[in-house]
Amino acid sequence: MQNPTDPLAHYRDQFHIPDGVIYLDGNSLGAMVKTAPARLEKAIKQEWANDLITSWNKAGWWQLPLTLGGKIAPLIGAAPDSVVVTDSTSINIYKALHAALALRPDRSVIVAEHNSFPTDLYMAQGVTSTRPNLERRLIGEVGSELDQALDENVAVVLLNHVDYRSGTLLDMAAITAKIHKSGAIAVWDLCHSAGVFPVELDAADVDFAIGCSYKYLNGGPGAPAFIYANKRHHDQITQPLTGWWAHVEPFAFKQDFASHNGMRAFLCGTQPILSMIALEAALEVFEGIDMTVMREKSKALTSLFADLVLADADRFGIALYGPKDAENRGSQVSFSHQNGYAIMQALIARGVIGDFRQPDIIRFGFSPLYISFDDVRNAAQILLDILTSGAWKQYEHHQDGTVT
Amino acid sequence: MQNPTDPLAHYRDQFHIPDGVIYLDGNSLGAMVKTAPARLEKAIKQEWANDLITSWNKAGWWQLPLTLGGKIAPLIGAAPDSVVVTDSTSINIYKALHAALALRPDRSVIVAEHNSFPTDLYMAQGVTSTRPNLERRLIGEVGSELDQALDENVAVVLLNHVDYRSGTLLDMAAITAKIHKSGAIAVWDLCHSAGVFPVELDAADVDFAIGCSYKYLNGGPGAPAFIYANKRHHDQITQPLTGWWAHVEPFAFKQDFASHNGMRAFLCGTQPILSMIALEAALEVFEGIDMTVMREKSKALTSLFADLVLADADRFGIALYGPKDAENRGSQVSFSHQNGYAIMQALIARGVIGDFRQPDIIRFGFSPLYISFDDVRNAAQILLDILTSGAWKQYEHHQDGTVT
Repeated sequence: MQNPTDPLAHYRDQFHIPDGVIYLDGNSLGAMVKTAPARLEKAIKQEWANDLITSWNKAGWWQLPLTLGGKIAPLIGAAPDSVVVTDSTSINIYKALHAALALRPDRSVIVAEHNSFPTDLYMAQGVTSTRPNLERRLIGEVGSELDQALDENVAVVLLNHVDYRSGTLLDMAAITAKIHKSGAIAVWDLCHSAGVFPVELDAADVDFAIGCSYKYLNGGPGAPAFIYANKRHHDQITQPLTGWWAHVEPFAFKQDFASHNGMRAFLCGTQPILSMIALEAALEVFEGIDMTVMREKSKALTSLFADLVLADADRFGIALYGPKDAENRGSQVSFSHQNGYAIMQALIARGVIGDFRQPDIIRFGFSPLYISFDDVRNAAQILLDILTSGAWKQYEHHQDGTVT
Repeated sequence: MQNPTDPLAHYRDQFHIPDGVIYLDGNSLGAMVKTAPARLEKAIKQEWANDLITSWNKAGWWQLPLTLGGKIAPLIGAAPDSVVVTDSTSINIYKALHAALALRPDRSVIVAEHNSFPTDLYMAQGVTSTRPNLERRLIGEVGSELDQALDENVAVVLLNHVDYRSGTLLDMAAITAKIHKSGAIAVWDLCHSAGVFPVELDAADVDFAIGCSYKYLNGGPGAPAFIYANKRHHDQITQPLTGWWAHVEPFAFKQDFASHNGMRAFLCGTQPILSMIALEAALEVFEGIDMTVMREKSKALTSLFADLVLADADRFGIALYGPKDAENRGSQVSFSHQNGYAIMQALIARGVIGDFRQPDIIRFGFSPLYISFDDVRNAAQILLDILTSGAWKQYEHHQDGTVT
């Protein structure tokens, strides 16, 4: 079986990939673009050290939430002024849920999937803790359980576009239409979809979306998150984290809050500029990219990996965890194996970096910008070697936590 | 008049101060410590680019909120495990106010000063917006108006330790005692006091405190903020931004939130690591420093500047804006002048960087770590030159915003 042609092969040279590493964890922390160190050095030595406070205007620091939002917008099918970069994913979920509830004041239920990345569920709980009579309602599989959960009390539905463990990809347009039909607001978490395939927020008529920038967008560790609102909501965004960056006149220093219209209403306090500048460098790589080409390569990568590993599945007690068809998954492949933790440790020791998720899942993410088909073949071969030789057995010890 | 001796003079060399600049705006954005670029380069090229996700454990990224909090704690009179660095000042105000309200469930009023930095007031409004029957009650001068505001409905009082415009320093211990006597919770904003004189949170029995790290702590543009809670509250911290970083088992990925005890309960989502690492470099400068020595120098700096400028005050129409006695102010001196904006522009053109605040206030901050008595003399002379010559008149144009 020959490798497919790779129209994105030339992007790999824009990233720093450590020698001897096949990095299949870009869905946890994206690789560094090679321009990031010089861009950060300039920010530190010139903008901060020399130009000091003038950089808030001169270097555009003050505008970074909007500037960076404008660069992410085309990757997620959003109008340019419909996205800002600010705060963390968790905090932006809180804002989006409050904004949604404000649009449905007569309803009181937040629906979420119990398989969500847990911070989504915890933030929904946080929202319910602030106001009486709110309810967090959890569902299992969206396909089979969303319908019956959507009653006339549901104000908002918070869904993960791609499941962080299984990689299951939901049909955003169809599900959003269903949510709207019930009278509720749709909030999508794009942590595992932004930057790796075409997301069509405006076309799907999504209400709000949030996501992180340090996975497929390669913004660097803990780079600030983004938040989107559909244009039809821009004049009525209300959320309780009303800091001075959201004020219509932030430098008038008035006593009472008056919200800026549009996406600035989602800002709060002063943002971590150095972390934003690393993201700015990372986003330049995406300029002019065709996300449909990214998607085609992504599907080919995940399909090849799944096919190679599963060829001998019965023998090794390994099973696909997630959708069989590449169409229905994000840019990751997960397997379950009772010795998953030890297997992942053995892989890492041989330079294949993926991650482990409770209880028995090994997860591999494929960034089409820097993963090649040869990487996939080599990684699969190493995994099969480890399964064949039983080399994982030396790693059967206590499991440490790792960070998504 | 001779300069006082300067026991901190040797610290100046640890900072990058641009040539020809007298930087009196460290209360807006602190100067860069010279170790920051190399430390950030290591974080980018080694920890991120090469070590990738392993740095969450190996490089201590996951622990940074606590590590950095532990370095700030001695500067503000807090037990080492009573401070975390996370999110922004505005967001931490929101958390602290909610935590305070949770401790006083039968009370409903948040008292704040109308002269507060506005984000404090806006966040208090944000909190009242989430729950019915909460009231934000504003007071004028704390000395004359706090007493009558403190009725049996007051749950929490939010005060600025040092006023951002006038520099007025409040008596934290006495006022906290008064607040406690009324049965309310005391929350202090330390944005203009942390890192420049001894703050005694534990000794004053303060309940909660918040502050930013990019002013006198020199953490870099928008570096994450800190939050403090008194140990007696550590087992009962509740706040609604319940992200996964606050979970007692963050990697168990459970459906329901269960808060970590202690200060981790104030964490929320993934933090901007690169911005935190610049702060880490900055905080190393403070190790072993005697904050009372810092305070003595600070008072001498502000007194010298005020004396020199006010010697000819009547002639120039300039007046002190704030306390006359250095004991009663932070590390800043402000003046009012009807042409304040143009005067500040003229100063900046001659290398003296302070800032302007509406309506007519010119503000000068003095970081004792990198400002010398000669700087003060030179800055005062340049200001007097500008007033004498009328050189400010060429700057009488439209006022732009600048960032605190």
